[in-house]
Amino acid sequence: MSQDLRVGMVGYAFMGAAHSQAWRTVNHVFDLPARARMSVVCGRSAGQVADAAVKLGWEGHTTDWRSVVESDDIDLVDICTPGDTHAEIALAALAAGKHVLCEKPLANSVAEAREMAAAAAAAKTRGVRAMCGYNYRRVPAVALMRQLVAAGRIGTIRHVRAVYLQDWIVDPQFPLVWRLRKEIAGSGALGDIGAHIVDLTQFVTGQSITAVSALTETFVRTRPLPSASSGLSASGNGAATGDVTVDDAALFLARLDGGAVATYEATRFATGRKNALRVELNGSLGSLAFDFERMNELEVYDATVPAAEQGFTKILVTEAEHPYMAAWWPPGHLIGYEHSFTHEVRDLIEAIAAGQDPAPSFADALQVQLVLDAVERSAAAGSWTEVEPVLEAVQG
Amino acid sequence: MSQDLRVGMVGYAFMGAAHSQAWRTVNHVFDLPARARMSVVCGRSAGQVADAAVKLGWEGHTTDWRSVVESDDIDLVDICTPGDTHAEIALAALAAGKHVLCEKPLANSVAEAREMAAAAAAAKTRGVRAMCGYNYRRVPAVALMRQLVAAGRIGTIRHVRAVYLQDWIVDPQFPLVWRLRKEIAGSGALGDIGAHIVDLTQFVTGQSITAVSALTETFVRTRPLPSASSGLSASGNGAATGDVTVDDAALFLARLDGGAVATYEATRFATGRKNALRVELNGSLGSLAFDFERMNELEVYDATVPAAEQGFTKILVTEAEHPYMAAWWPPGHLIGYEHSFTHEVRDLIEAIAAGQDPAPSFADALQVQLVLDAVERSAAAGSWTEVEPVLEAVQG
Amino acid sequence: MSQDLRVGMVGYAFMGAAHSQAWRTVNHVFDLPARARMSVVCGRSAGQVADAAVKLGWEGHTTDWRSVVESDDIDLVDICTPGDTHAEIALAALAAGKHVLCEKPLANSVAEAREMAAAAAAAKTRGVRAMCGYNYRRVPAVALMRQLVAAGRIGTIRHVRAVYLQDWIVDPQFPLVWRLRKEIAGSGALGDIGAHIVDLTQFVTGQSITAVSALTETFVRTRPLPSASSGLSASGNGAATGDVTVDDAALFLARLDGGAVATYEATRFATGRKNALRVELNGSLGSLAFDFERMNELEVYDATVPAAEQGFTKILVTEAEHPYMAAWWPPGHLIGYEHSFTHEVRDLIEAIAAGQDPAPSFADALQVQLVLDAVERSAAAGSWTEVEPVLEAVQG
Amino acid sequence: MSQDLRVGMVGYAFMGAAHSQAWRTVNHVFDLPARARMSVVCGRSAGQVADAAVKLGWEGHTTDWRSVVESDDIDLVDICTPGDTHAEIALAALAAGKHVLCEKPLANSVAEAREMAAAAAAAKTRGVRAMCGYNYRRVPAVALMRQLVAAGRIGTIRHVRAVYLQDWIVDPQFPLVWRLRKEIAGSGALGDIGAHIVDLTQFVTGQSITAVSALTETFVRTRPLPSASSGLSASGNGAATGDVTVDDAALFLARLDGGAVATYEATRFATGRKNALRVELNGSLGSLAFDFERMNELEVYDATVPAAEQGFTKILVTEAEHPYMAAWWPPGHLIGYEHSFTHEVRDLIEAIAAGQDPAPSFADALQVQLVLDAVERSAAAGSWTEVEPVLEAVQG
Repeated sequence: MSQDLRVGMVGYAFMGAAHSQAWRTVNHVFDLPARARMSVVCGRSAGQVADAAVKLGWEGHTTDWRSVVESDDIDLVDICTPGDTHAEIALAALAAGKHVLCEKPLANSVAEAREMAAAAAAAKTRGVRAMCGYNYRRVPAVALMRQLVAAGRIGTIRHVRAVYLQDWIVDPQFPLVWRLRKEIAGSGALGDIGAHIVDLTQFVTGQSITAVSALTETFVRTRPLPSASSGLSASGNGAATGDVTVDDAALFLARLDGGAVATYEATRFATGRKNALRVELNGSLGSLAFDFERMNELEVYDATVPAAEQGFTKILVTEAEHPYMAAWWPPGHLIGYEHSFTHEVRDLIEAIAAGQDPAPSFADALQVQLVLDAVERSAAAGSWTEVEPVLEAVQG
Repeated sequence: MSQDLRVGMVGYAFMGAAHSQAWRTVNHVFDLPARARMSVVCGRSAGQVADAAVKLGWEGHTTDWRSVVESDDIDLVDICTPGDTHAEIALAALAAGKHVLCEKPLANSVAEAREMAAAAAAAKTRGVRAMCGYNYRRVPAVALMRQLVAAGRIGTIRHVRAVYLQDWIVDPQFPLVWRLRKEIAGSGALGDIGAHIVDLTQFVTGQSITAVSALTETFVRTRPLPSASSGLSASGNGAATGDVTVDDAALFLARLDGGAVATYEATRFATGRKNALRVELNGSLGSLAFDFERMNELEVYDATVPAAEQGFTKILVTEAEHPYMAAWWPPGHLIGYEHSFTHEVRDLIEAIAAGQDPAPSFADALQVQLVLDAVERSAAAGSWTEVEPVLEAVQG
Repeated sequence: MSQDLRVGMVGYAFMGAAHSQAWRTVNHVFDLPARARMSVVCGRSAGQVADAAVKLGWEGHTTDWRSVVESDDIDLVDICTPGDTHAEIALAALAAGKHVLCEKPLANSVAEAREMAAAAAAAKTRGVRAMCGYNYRRVPAVALMRQLVAAGRIGTIRHVRAVYLQDWIVDPQFPLVWRLRKEIAGSGALGDIGAHIVDLTQFVTGQSITAVSALTETFVRTRPLPSASSGLSASGNGAATGDVTVDDAALFLARLDGGAVATYEATRFATGRKNALRVELNGSLGSLAFDFERMNELEVYDATVPAAEQGFTKILVTEAEHPYMAAWWPPGHLIGYEHSFTHEVRDLIEAIAAGQDPAPSFADALQVQLVLDAVERSAAAGSWTEVEPVLEAVQG
Repeated sequence: MSQDLRVGMVGYAFMGAAHSQAWRTVNHVFDLPARARMSVVCGRSAGQVADAAVKLGWEGHTTDWRSVVESDDIDLVDICTPGDTHAEIALAALAAGKHVLCEKPLANSVAEAREMAAAAAAAKTRGVRAMCGYNYRRVPAVALMRQLVAAGRIGTIRHVRAVYLQDWIVDPQFPLVWRLRKEIAGSGALGDIGAHIVDLTQFVTGQSITAVSALTETFVRTRPLPSASSGLSASGNGAATGDVTVDDAALFLARLDGGAVATYEATRFATGRKNALRVELNGSLGSLAFDFERMNELEVYDATVPAAEQGFTKILVTEAEHPYMAAWWPPGHLIGYEHSFTHEVRDLIEAIAAGQDPAPSFADALQVQLVLDAVERSAAAGSWTEVEPVLEAVQG
């Protein structure tokens, strides 16, 4: 290991904690061509960011994100803030020649995402790398799903069935946290969790969504103002209330460019479903099914074996032969949510060291944004809506 | 037991066999006010229907369905033919004062279904009963689902998630059986299995679908002509081929009149899913989930218990306290598919004896037909489409 | 179908109802060389047996089992009484030249079982057939399990893991029904449900238990006397109590003659487990796992496929290619508990018509009895105990 | 956080890597009264331990464990070596006034374990703490299991059903690694994984095993000598072979001092089961079931709710209300195997800081050793064998 990759992270809440765990761990598990150094963390409150630096293991801290972006002592900027600030920080970082890891969704608008993808394409010509943090791609079972599809094991894909179900705002007294405010979060369940299943299904199928018919709904339209929040939990603030300005749920049908038809559903009102990111693919030769709440398992159906022996095989994705797993524990010793981030930064470090583009690129993430945009336009129009193409220029 | 209910059944294939098992069994398991007598079975081929009568346990047989309908020795006509003949037989039977049990979907067109519902409403005034065979309502777990919703146990329903997945025509060499021909079957997966999840979700929620946005797809458009078929299996007939004139899959979003939003999917191309009728409801106080491939189980989530103890409870629906189950075996001794039909005729016999209307009525079944019709119109138009109302007059 | 098989059944409670359902159904589902005729049912109470005859579908009824055994109008005697009467009835029936189907366990003592097996061996030379009703062998998933083992698919079997868990007497107020009295039932959980897993595991492995180390326990030693009972449910009778004289639970380790080691557990105190007959086999090339509470499924692990693709395959045992299933419904349309009895009498009718011996024979059932006897002796002695051999003479 | 806890770890293979991940992580997730400092790692090969120090994140490294034990710069010695060296290192460390965390099983013999427990009891009087690493106690679902039992939620426990199933040596060509050699490992499956289920079931029930009847088996008695091994994987070394001197599987029945009866099975020949540590408890009021292969779930049956609503509730143990989980991610975001170690060192740090004894103590671990000893004696004798008591003096 000959080089350090000096990381500056902006934001230190839920995503910041997850990324920190990844940066702290990655070199202790994987043999990599560079060593991540947790140089500086940035946040708005001086006191809180100082505490976070100690707690999360960062060498320094600051309240000035521009100083991070411009520092000669930083190689990579890791953006873990809400979506309303992604574009400004990412554009500045790329302009300053820093590699960028940006949390998803890429931006709160297509316009911003286009600008970011264009900047990333331009930066790439200078050897600067940009990646969007669709971490679920790095769950080993999902990576295995992709391998099996790519190997033709399920044949022509006919059906995609994807849901991302949570329930943390079912209680109407749950407060109006930033994720429920359009000006900060961009959208609700759609951009927060719907974006994940759009990215994941396109990744595993190798197909792109071309058109959608959508419905969005906000079941609880007014909520108490929040006093404090952490992760996805929060407490309220007495009598003052505010309007929920994002969707509680987004449902859509879709057609993909390889001929598959699909249903998607993202909701925060699926009582009892905590983080049920579920994807099923049905192909002419077999099927695959994944549920994040059992993230170490993949179900595989092979329609080419004798009829009496066909069935869904529950693969415990913990073998050394499985993606990412040789570095971890013996078979049957499970990994967790945070490992997806460790795998993400592992792949990012390897790509940077190899002078290659990491995936998903900003162009990939723009395309997801275009799907989300089509969903919102379709929901408004009440009819099928085509997904705008990512321009050639941006794809670089 | 003071009276006989003399049954004449038209059709003796898959549904006919299932109904026969029900008629043969019902009085041997349940204590009922009337005894079903399997008087006559009717089919088009004299030789085959004679064999069927012996095999299935009918006293007599005929090739003339009108003789069944008009016979003084028949009290109830059980219609197990494909959808293209339902209307004519049912109308004749009702006109002749026979009770009618008609397989689903009620008819191949809304016009026919309206006429049938009107006839049933008129017959009702003469004490003649009509019921449509949406048998899955009589699965004990589904009946329990309905009880829990009706008791308010899951609160306000926000999400309905329903699929009916089969895979028996994934092979493009599977022949062009009658279920793939619009002139006989009316529609494909939509009417065959989609109809079940429309009826079932409306039944368990107590809500009606008001509007849909749909997509239908036919993945394999030409198939070999069939030589022989039985149930859902068949063999092909050499080189001759014909066009598939129905949908292979139908997907739709829906809004229900109680405020719930929904996704529906019916397909015969879900490789590995054999009879996966799955329904999940998410409400403000809890959730319910059912999968027919584990038909003796119901999953219940109660969000009102302490957070640390919440979870999906897998109820094995085999207790004497569960609907229909006191008549069967001790707890844990499962029942099967055919029992749903036995329960159906049990409820029908009880309704007739009590002089009450059985459910689902023809008006209920017409309403399902109107939903299917809206799905087809929406798929054609590419936009949200409202479900037409069932007229007051028909509801009688 | 050229001949009738005239059946006389003794006993009409839980097992009698299950057998009746089988006799009523078998010829309507399977194409068989003989037709079962439900000639007469026998019970101790004239009024109750008359009612049972009507309810269960028997042509006649009697309170005199000897008249059944000796009647010229009876071809087969079906013994559904408690174990204390099996020997006397079976011996008389065989002596009278009647085929016999005897519920399990074969007898309440090894001595009786030996006498019965000897009588069956003698009767066999006169073309008279005897079979013991270990119905779980006829669950399609279990039959498939046997096929896979016999085909060498799991290699050398190293581990057998079998439990039969129920919970119907956890409540200490549950009354002292006949199944809790040694003089009638012979033993408790051991003979009632433990016998099933002994038979089933020996059947599927093709190996015999040679030695056991056992423990038996009676957790609740005094119970109220019963007023009425049905199946496995019952109600109590006020203040009068009596002693439980059988085991509530029996646990044992075992060695099998093919080199496998095993654990067995039969209990009526496994709260929440209703009829959890579970068997797992681990072999050098794969594993098999079955749970009756999901009786339409078999889990198969194949260790010969690539490591990354290994996993337990959940086969939905409802394909036409699976044992018994071609006669029933399309794939995914489940069957239930009672079907195991229908399959049992189907196989019995075929064996009789073919002049072949049905399995399990009385000698097979005697061998199970010898295992149960070794378990009781081991539990009493506190040490490993060998299973006595079935004598050559008996095996005939 | 006012103090450092300077850790010296001996051994850096599988357990060493897991402990390192825990020490690296614990202060970044939990708010603790002391900060773990990874001071030095010790191994036999200078080159390999130097590499391990870098890879795993230790400040220094050495090949001299005595220097670690005696160093003034070390507060705690973490013993991750095979069992044959535990006693010597632990005794020296305790004598030197160091806190000790010792991997399980505590020792390879009862004599050693007794000496260690006595030393720990003596050290305790000087404020020196000793803990044995039965990490599975710290899986949140297991900790919740304990809470529910302790709260009386399942009433009087009647049945314990515990297995620990692995399959990593099913292949007879898998080499003779140290875990298969009695002089290093002490025993085979029994001490390696059987020890875990002995400890775990005693922990969750609050009962102790008093007597056992056991069977041990070595299916493959000769194996190739190993060339290299890592975790539970290894490669062979050509033609040279050696004798397996430990058990491949250990099965036993047991009685517990609270009246429960139990079955235990530990094996490395359960093909397809990778790390299936499964425990089920049946009590008079309910049941609990856990499977490590789904370690984020606990199944709870409550027999006190209405019969129609009883069932096994699958709790996803990821809520802030669950043991350890408030420090991690939002609900539904799973944790993995390694987290059990992070929780273990978290509890150890808290106990040390609070001047309290951590659990399991060396006396607790001695008691497990006495159970393992009884198992081996019972297997040799072929009869029930009592577990020797832990002496009062040791329990101190």
